[in-house]
Amino acid sequence: MAIKTRAEASVRSSAEIPLRPAVAWQPPYATRTGRIALSRPRPHTPDDLFRPKAFVGEAVPFGVTAFREGHDLIGVHVRLVSPSGVETLHRLTALQDGFDRWSVLIAPLEQGVWSYTFEAFADDFATWEHAADLKIAAGVDVPLMREMGALLFDRARDERSRPNAERAALEAAAAALRDPEVGTESALAVVRDPAIAAFFADRPLQSLTTVGTTRELLVERERAGVGAWYEFFPRSEGARRLKNGTVKSGTFRTAAKRLPGVAGMGFDVIYIVPVHPIGQTNRKGRNNTLEALPGDPGSPYAIGAADGGHDAIHSDLGTLADFRAFVRAARTQGLEVAIDLALQASPDHPWVAEHPEWFTTLPDGTIAYAENPPKKYQDIYPLNFDNDPVGSYAEMLRVVRHWVAQGVKIFRVDNPHTKPLQFWEWLIATVNAEDPDVIFLAEAFTRPAIMQSLAMVGFQQSYSYFTWRNTKAELEEFLVTISRETADFMRPNLFVNTHDILTQYLQFGGRPAYKIRAAIAATVGATYGVYAGYELYENVARPGSEENIDNEKYEYKFRDWEGAEASGNSLAPYLRRLNEIRRAHPALRQLRGLSLHWSDDDAILVYVKHLPAALSETGESDTIIVVVNVDPHSARQTLVHLDPTVWGGTPGESFEVEDLISGSTWTWSSSSNFVRLDAFIEPVHILHLKGTR
Amino acid sequence: MAIKTRAEASVRSSAEIPLRPAVAWQPPYATRTGRIALSRPRPHTPDDLFRPKAFVGEAVPFGVTAFREGHDLIGVHVRLVSPSGVETLHRLTALQDGFDRWSVLIAPLEQGVWSYTFEAFADDFATWEHAADLKIAAGVDVPLMREMGALLFDRARDERSRPNAERAALEAAAAALRDPEVGTESALAVVRDPAIAAFFADRPLQSLTTVGTTRELLVERERAGVGAWYEFFPRSEGARRLKNGTVKSGTFRTAAKRLPGVAGMGFDVIYIVPVHPIGQTNRKGRNNTLEALPGDPGSPYAIGAADGGHDAIHSDLGTLADFRAFVRAARTQGLEVAIDLALQASPDHPWVAEHPEWFTTLPDGTIAYAENPPKKYQDIYPLNFDNDPVGSYAEMLRVVRHWVAQGVKIFRVDNPHTKPLQFWEWLIATVNAEDPDVIFLAEAFTRPAIMQSLAMVGFQQSYSYFTWRNTKAELEEFLVTISRETADFMRPNLFVNTHDILTQYLQFGGRPAYKIRAAIAATVGATYGVYAGYELYENVARPGSEENIDNEKYEYKFRDWEGAEASGNSLAPYLRRLNEIRRAHPALRQLRGLSLHWSDDDAILVYVKHLPAALSETGESDTIIVVVNVDPHSARQTLVHLDPTVWGGTPGESFEVEDLISGSTWTWSSSSNFVRLDAFIEPVHILHLKGTR
Repeated sequence: MAIKTRAEASVRSSAEIPLRPAVAWQPPYATRTGRIALSRPRPHTPDDLFRPKAFVGEAVPFGVTAFREGHDLIGVHVRLVSPSGVETLHRLTALQDGFDRWSVLIAPLEQGVWSYTFEAFADDFATWEHAADLKIAAGVDVPLMREMGALLFDRARDERSRPNAERAALEAAAAALRDPEVGTESALAVVRDPAIAAFFADRPLQSLTTVGTTRELLVERERAGVGAWYEFFPRSEGARRLKNGTVKSGTFRTAAKRLPGVAGMGFDVIYIVPVHPIGQTNRKGRNNTLEALPGDPGSPYAIGAADGGHDAIHSDLGTLADFRAFVRAARTQGLEVAIDLALQASPDHPWVAEHPEWFTTLPDGTIAYAENPPKKYQDIYPLNFDNDPVGSYAEMLRVVRHWVAQGVKIFRVDNPHTKPLQFWEWLIATVNAEDPDVIFLAEAFTRPAIMQSLAMVGFQQSYSYFTWRNTKAELEEFLVTISRETADFMRPNLFVNTHDILTQYLQFGGRPAYKIRAAIAATVGATYGVYAGYELYENVARPGSEENIDNEKYEYKFRDWEGAEASGNSLAPYLRRLNEIRRAHPALRQLRGLSLHWSDDDAILVYVKHLPAALSETGESDTIIVVVNVDPHSARQTLVHLDPTVWGGTPGESFEVEDLISGSTWTWSSSSNFVRLDAFIEPVHILHLKGTR
Repeated sequence: MAIKTRAEASVRSSAEIPLRPAVAWQPPYATRTGRIALSRPRPHTPDDLFRPKAFVGEAVPFGVTAFREGHDLIGVHVRLVSPSGVETLHRLTALQDGFDRWSVLIAPLEQGVWSYTFEAFADDFATWEHAADLKIAAGVDVPLMREMGALLFDRARDERSRPNAERAALEAAAAALRDPEVGTESALAVVRDPAIAAFFADRPLQSLTTVGTTRELLVERERAGVGAWYEFFPRSEGARRLKNGTVKSGTFRTAAKRLPGVAGMGFDVIYIVPVHPIGQTNRKGRNNTLEALPGDPGSPYAIGAADGGHDAIHSDLGTLADFRAFVRAARTQGLEVAIDLALQASPDHPWVAEHPEWFTTLPDGTIAYAENPPKKYQDIYPLNFDNDPVGSYAEMLRVVRHWVAQGVKIFRVDNPHTKPLQFWEWLIATVNAEDPDVIFLAEAFTRPAIMQSLAMVGFQQSYSYFTWRNTKAELEEFLVTISRETADFMRPNLFVNTHDILTQYLQFGGRPAYKIRAAIAATVGATYGVYAGYELYENVARPGSEENIDNEKYEYKFRDWEGAEASGNSLAPYLRRLNEIRRAHPALRQLRGLSLHWSDDDAILVYVKHLPAALSETGESDTIIVVVNVDPHSARQTLVHLDPTVWGGTPGESFEVEDLISGSTWTWSSSSNFVRLDAFIEPVHILHLKGTR
């Protein structure tokens, strides 16, 4: 393959070849299908209405179905043009899967809108090589096959773009094929010469070239796809119970003291719940009770009060300047701040008086509460975007721009599925046109079509069903879905818990459950997240629910991070190790490149993440084998079976692995490997395959 | 639902509603997604590059994914415009499958290009009805819900298109809701009034109406999708062995004597292999030997000799006038003639001398034979369409037009996957523009992507993998593929055998195998086919092959149809019965509408074909339950379990079934039914469910 001379590469690719223009063969009539059929291009989105997505450095499979009539062989290229106009050409490999799929893995390195175009062609050298190999060996048409080869070599020699060294070699090869003194065995050696094959791999002899439709791929910044998130409530950090029994809220200043701890665990993003004034009318009390008691801080999602709405800071937390200082403090720690965008209002929100048309007014003159009939949520008015779409859309855009101006580039969007899909398409496109670095995470836990549509219209990241996929069978299906079926347009952020979600698995799985879920999230998800308290194994739910008791939404939480760690009652060291492993291993910072492998136990899940050397920032391949006992109540022993071809290995081979959790090293083979995973000791192996491939 | 007043309906539909214009809600900004999301419209083809297809009378599922934000309810319509401009509107049903799919079954009755457009809207009545039902019953917001309902009824009453009877009823209902004397129970009765719900089913109160993209559906004549085919070699019918040992070929006149027998078995299409002059050079002998002996007739696929090519008639068979007389004789018997279109040439074809540019000339000046290196087929030159695409395409079109002029409207195309896909797209489109009744059947046994692409670019029918799907598991997967996954663009013609295919299942399955395969083909395939000799249980293969020994391609066959039937050694009576059943049961003349059901035996296959009354030409529903023992060597007994909801029945119900093969009638239930199928007696039940639904 060609050596890159460009100062800075636009892509990483295992199959880049010298650039050349595509000279398309012109059919006699305009048809929808080309001379060589090209269909089902990937990456794509269902309906092809929206651009597929990738992030900078993501190893994206470019694939297409391509075939021609009869037995002659074809080749397929993909031509990429980067946002700055750098054009590259890459050769696809036939998957030989019976479905005529061709594929190549390419990592785009430039942010912005790329174009890609597949090109298929009759591969005249390959067709001749295949026939000549068989026929010369069988003694059929030998002089004819030799002359046909010589003619191909003549044609290749005359191509202007071909290097002189190749020309000379091809001329000699043609002469040998034409020389009656050169015997059949030597002629066959020319046919099978790997050096000549390499010339034609780089510069194939094309005919009937067919150029497919040019499509677009949106490449976003790396953080759109990769990151470890940590969620907390700023008001809890530094909150103090006063002598009179009331609580003094934490502030941005006190909350900032927690940042080194979070950064020290290796997280990349600090996500904070809404920081705006909270309504008084119908304020919720502790545990979501209908009446707040004096001193109850209220849900930060009941946004808006006399002192302001979505562009204001809750006076308990400080000022806008304090907020900016918090963002700067986080940046100093290597953390990026994500804030909540919860587009709804408490009855006290300034919007209610100033813009009643942004809500739904009922025939009795009242404004409609949020409801799920016959239930009502009287601390919240949902917005109605349809009475005044121009005005309401503009206000939401103003709010986002306001926070972008304060240094925020990541928004976790609360319940986006309760607002028009069209609104999100418009808002995200408008914001990203001004600043393509802004990232929106969709907190939609709803039906799959809606979640996928939110991702397609623009959300850079999505919450997912991960928290409810706990058995081996459930996880296997989920892993295939997120890493293959929807990976062209949807990036799940695998939160292990949230302030709204404490699953039965965590409630009843004990401390092993916390390790298991964190290890899976950190190794499967290029992006994953943790809500504060996870490291303290907080596992008591409101009875009958999948939500923490004494939910932090309605009260302050007092937690002793250092004390827990000092006494060995914290998961923080484990999270720290997981994040270290993620930083050291580029394969774990990819959503794709995951394959399922096998164990003989119905609770031992096995998967591999692999990134080939040509696609890796380090220039070395990276292969991680994860073996998890997903039953937190058991010690299990079984055999693990691997398919080494996924990392370019050979069936039957042996190799060294190092467990990045325990530090142990073993010699493993692809056929079967004994594992014993005691959930109460270490439920997970995260194995690094030694050596590059 | 509305009563159709139009003299002739353009569609059959279970959900047609009164026509009205769509008044689209205008979003403030142009977005790709609409106010209400509409995606994944069906019917469709992969990539949406080609039109999906249906045939006249086919019950086509129109489906779409539709949802809106929040809890308010939506409705979905599809608007159809027939080729002659008749516009109809149909209401879709939410499948409630968790994937937000909506669907309606519609049978187009007019040939040509239809358009269809999905429309989604906020269903204001349904949203109110749902909330009012819950809230009034719970005593929440009762006056408000009553007034909101009254306002909706006022709005409906004022719609100009609403019938006067509805207006009066709605006015009364509004008054009742507003009347304080009318109690809560009575108000709730208004909310739940089925008559009012029916008004709004026909004429919903719409808002936020979103109109999807208009798409096209190609509706072809019924024979494109429905028919029973019979293949024979005209030269064998009436061939006589002379005293000198040579054979006198059958002619069109003698072959025509077989037509009443074929028609009497209930077939619709008589397909004849090529009827053109056969080359002498390198003619193949019996059993595909390389040298023909004197008197060997040669393969009819080695087309072309001194006396003509693809537009000529083999002199042994008669003249062009004789051919036309054969076509007329077939028509008199209710049979349509299909001929072979095998675009290749013997070395003696006139094209070879007149247009060597339509072949591949090698460096040694010879023309390339067909080959699969190192094998060569020296009785055949393949065409090369790339040297002179304009000229060669035009000649192929001339050949097709020539036969259309002789009264032929169906072409079975030999090996279309060895010619450019683009050529077929152009040829079929050009021919169908002149005569949309012309049907092309693709004889491509190759990789799935190629077979599907040929169907997408225009072939009305396709050979399939049916002959190699014999076990219950294989058949279940195959049935789902053809009746659902690919049914929008691919119509398999389920041949049980061909002159090239005698499967191991038939070779070694004995006479039961012949019944089993014919019964499945005739009941699954809206189109199926039989090659002559199947009714005589011809099951001896060339050793090691899946092809008849003494293949009729290379010699004459002498068969005693009447004698075999008289002695009870013919399957003809069974085939006759199958075709009678097909004619009596419209559900069997649909490819779709198939569902798999269950038995406890791994060889007892169970499926149901159902056509609802509104979609049926008879006005009555048609439900056929097929139970097959696919193991031809066994008698099996087991329990059969059915899901009656597929025919609108109720789980647990009992019903009467009649076995259309044996004439027996039984009372069956959905839960479990004992069957015993002895392959040596009757391996198949074809059960008609009595009564309409």
